[in-house]
Amino acid sequence: MKKLFAEFFGTFWLVFGGCGSAVFAAGVPDIGIGLAGVALAFGLTVLTMAYALGPISGGHFNPAVSFGLLAGGRFKSKDLVSYVVAQLLGAILAAACLYFILKGAGAYSAEGVGAFATNFYDLPGYNGRSYSLAASFLTEFLLTAFFLIVIMGATDKWANGKFAGLAIGLALTLIHLISIPITNTSVNPARSTSQALFVGGVALQQLWLFWVAPILGGIAGGLIYKCLLQKEDHEVVI
Amino acid sequence: MKKLFAEFFGTFWLVFGGCGSAVFAAGVPDIGIGLAGVALAFGLTVLTMAYALGPISGGHFNPAVSFGLLAGGRFKSKDLVSYVVAQLLGAILAAACLYFILKGAGAYSAEGVGAFATNFYDLPGYNGRSYSLAASFLTEFLLTAFFLIVIMGATDKWANGKFAGLAIGLALTLIHLISIPITNTSVNPARSTSQALFVGGVALQQLWLFWVAPILGGIAGGLIYKCLLQKEDHEVVI
Amino acid sequence: MKKLFAEFFGTFWLVFGGCGSAVFAAGVPDIGIGLAGVALAFGLTVLTMAYALGPISGGHFNPAVSFGLLAGGRFKSKDLVSYVVAQLLGAILAAACLYFILKGAGAYSAEGVGAFATNFYDLPGYNGRSYSLAASFLTEFLLTAFFLIVIMGATDKWANGKFAGLAIGLALTLIHLISIPITNTSVNPARSTSQALFVGGVALQQLWLFWVAPILGGIAGGLIYKCLLQKEDHEVVI
Amino acid sequence: MKKLFAEFFGTFWLVFGGCGSAVFAAGVPDIGIGLAGVALAFGLTVLTMAYALGPISGGHFNPAVSFGLLAGGRFKSKDLVSYVVAQLLGAILAAACLYFILKGAGAYSAEGVGAFATNFYDLPGYNGRSYSLAASFLTEFLLTAFFLIVIMGATDKWANGKFAGLAIGLALTLIHLISIPITNTSVNPARSTSQALFVGGVALQQLWLFWVAPILGGIAGGLIYKCLLQKEDHEVVI
Repeated sequence: MKKLFAEFFGTFWLVFGGCGSAVFAAGVPDIGIGLAGVALAFGLTVLTMAYALGPISGGHFNPAVSFGLLAGGRFKSKDLVSYVVAQLLGAILAAACLYFILKGAGAYSAEGVGAFATNFYDLPGYNGRSYSLAASFLTEFLLTAFFLIVIMGATDKWANGKFAGLAIGLALTLIHLISIPITNTSVNPARSTSQALFVGGVALQQLWLFWVAPILGGIAGGLIYKCLLQKEDHEVVI
Repeated sequence: MKKLFAEFFGTFWLVFGGCGSAVFAAGVPDIGIGLAGVALAFGLTVLTMAYALGPISGGHFNPAVSFGLLAGGRFKSKDLVSYVVAQLLGAILAAACLYFILKGAGAYSAEGVGAFATNFYDLPGYNGRSYSLAASFLTEFLLTAFFLIVIMGATDKWANGKFAGLAIGLALTLIHLISIPITNTSVNPARSTSQALFVGGVALQQLWLFWVAPILGGIAGGLIYKCLLQKEDHEVVI
Repeated sequence: MKKLFAEFFGTFWLVFGGCGSAVFAAGVPDIGIGLAGVALAFGLTVLTMAYALGPISGGHFNPAVSFGLLAGGRFKSKDLVSYVVAQLLGAILAAACLYFILKGAGAYSAEGVGAFATNFYDLPGYNGRSYSLAASFLTEFLLTAFFLIVIMGATDKWANGKFAGLAIGLALTLIHLISIPITNTSVNPARSTSQALFVGGVALQQLWLFWVAPILGGIAGGLIYKCLLQKEDHEVVI
Repeated sequence: MKKLFAEFFGTFWLVFGGCGSAVFAAGVPDIGIGLAGVALAFGLTVLTMAYALGPISGGHFNPAVSFGLLAGGRFKSKDLVSYVVAQLLGAILAAACLYFILKGAGAYSAEGVGAFATNFYDLPGYNGRSYSLAASFLTEFLLTAFFLIVIMGATDKWANGKFAGLAIGLALTLIHLISIPITNTSVNPARSTSQALFVGGVALQQLWLFWVAPILGGIAGGLIYKCLLQKEDHEVVI
């Protein structure tokens, strides 16, 4: 049960901090934090909770991570459903809090591409470019796959595991530095779902991609690490 | 006594660095550090002093943290008052230095929402939005609660405690990335008090919220971690 | 073989993340990540993969690093060619993915100085300045030399080796903070080659410098550390 | 002798990276790294070299740090002069390289407040404010004093010493986030001297302050830590 509370609070923090920084602070004129600030915020949600709650639940906070670690042999299938439910509940409660706070300033809006930090594809984003479905799918797939390679590698028993929270959190920052202009960056179906539920419309219609691509990418990353990169015991020299 | 000196110097550094970066450097045209730079500065004050002075006093530098750790069973009530007094004295001396330096450039002003890095609610901030009292209270409450969850978790005996300074400092950066546009971000009654004392007026009238919400949030966070997340000894495997 | 896969995936990540952040996110109006965001992205590619794959291959992801470590006595010459080939293949596949994604938004262009994150010298860059061949060569030479000094020192047996990934990754961020306006920053022949292959023209004609200067700089850095800085066993106290 | 080489190369890197990022990249229109990028660059020069060369020389790279550690009882007076000379030589060679590279783009200028990253006081800086001599002196004094408190604390035997490079480097970033608009931030006489030598005029006339204030501040910080904060052996529990 403590594991599920950890996933619940951790995913709340990911959505409240990551999506919150986007809706409150990214676009403030002249001194706003911009996309780089949002990227840093998403990464720091994971970095902070990895060190705080990682020892309790493993610190997934993301269904694609749970699927990927399952594929990589680091997570048990019997825990999968309960982890994903806890993640979704945490994400949705965080989105509700963001909605309440924005409403309190009369600033909530469901209009516009990427409103309320929703994900999207094939729509004109921040610089007017529309990245096609194929380009968006590939982006989400690749980024989640490499996210899992970082997670699998940094938590491997041969690695300096205490640095895993740092490497994994900053990997999420890096992922956002690359791809916010493409899809608003998901790599996390829970984070996409919570925002789409409040906005509805196109955001809900396009939600499928932000389940399918990250989960397939996560599984691919878990398998790549397990099959191509993971050392066998007999290969290790001190 | 060394504990109180550590809290004094640490809180001085938090206010001098965090509020100082805001009043000196945030709004420089074109190349100013903006809200993201201020967020980084606040976090780095805590990160640096956590590694320098944390082993001496525990590195609270914030009355809400002291209350939260008390609620979480990590701090003794007999030290509470002296810690809070030392924090307030450090914060006020830092604000006095900031005041002197700004005066030295003819640049001190008590006019404008958030002047001299004061906190506020229900007033039009950086992008003209006024976040209601309820929205502001919820924001300060939630952020301080999660700040305490990070602190309690990262310093738990089952965690990689040496990384606590990193996680806690960067949690404060994250908190500022989210909420400077809402309340100018307090989560710390000492930091709010020192700035309000120099500005007076509305800043002093609204100061109560930046004592009540962070302290209640800190207590909530301490209790959440202790009751829902903290492992019992017999639950730990290795 | 696992070593070569590690170099392949790591260099893919370096190019996909570093050059990707540049072509997708740097120039978004008002909220783009700018040169500082690109600098952070390049550094985080190395930081994340150093912790994930460093224990497998040593985490070079850069022919100049392989040459420099060879000169410094930390890498075997028999592995040099296979490492460089794996790095080039990873870089080129990453550039192909970036090309496909940009094409998917109709946003690929080979026009303009530094297009598709190519390196250049003696051409007017972001602020209209043209840094001469000699200035560009010296910049790439010096930065790669100091990159190797950081790598050699941070991984030395007398150092806190577990922090090496942090120091080395952030050294690459620092290098980009200095020099993107000069040459678009290479210090890595694989990263320069992959981008030049897709753009052709001037980028290919100038590619030689981004092999020669980084490799000579890397060798110089490796030798400087080995000859002037590295402690002998008998010099170590404790 | 290796100690002096370490101080030489480390201070070269501090000036080449910190001042270099300022003169090459800070002011690029729209996408420049700004003052926050320069602050990050200065900090990363120290962070990277602390992990690379810290085990060799202690990683001062700054006469004010050498004086402060002497006052704090962590450095021997017999090494003071040779350390300061090595630091000055490294700084001056770095400034010469920056001069050569800027000349190679026809972009060197000795005109304007803070030209070539020189320090100044009582002159209108980035936002037109002139901070008085007293305000500038207090700023440099306080920031160097707290820099030394961080250094003394983070390297204390009771601290998590392996994190010292991180805390100290990021303390320098924090210091720059606060004070670039005030004095262009020195806290380091070697860094001020190398830049002033190339610019001459007012920069040389005002150089005295950037020796006196940082060194007095450094001594104050070393003494504060030693006398008020440092634990005695018998005070340590565990």
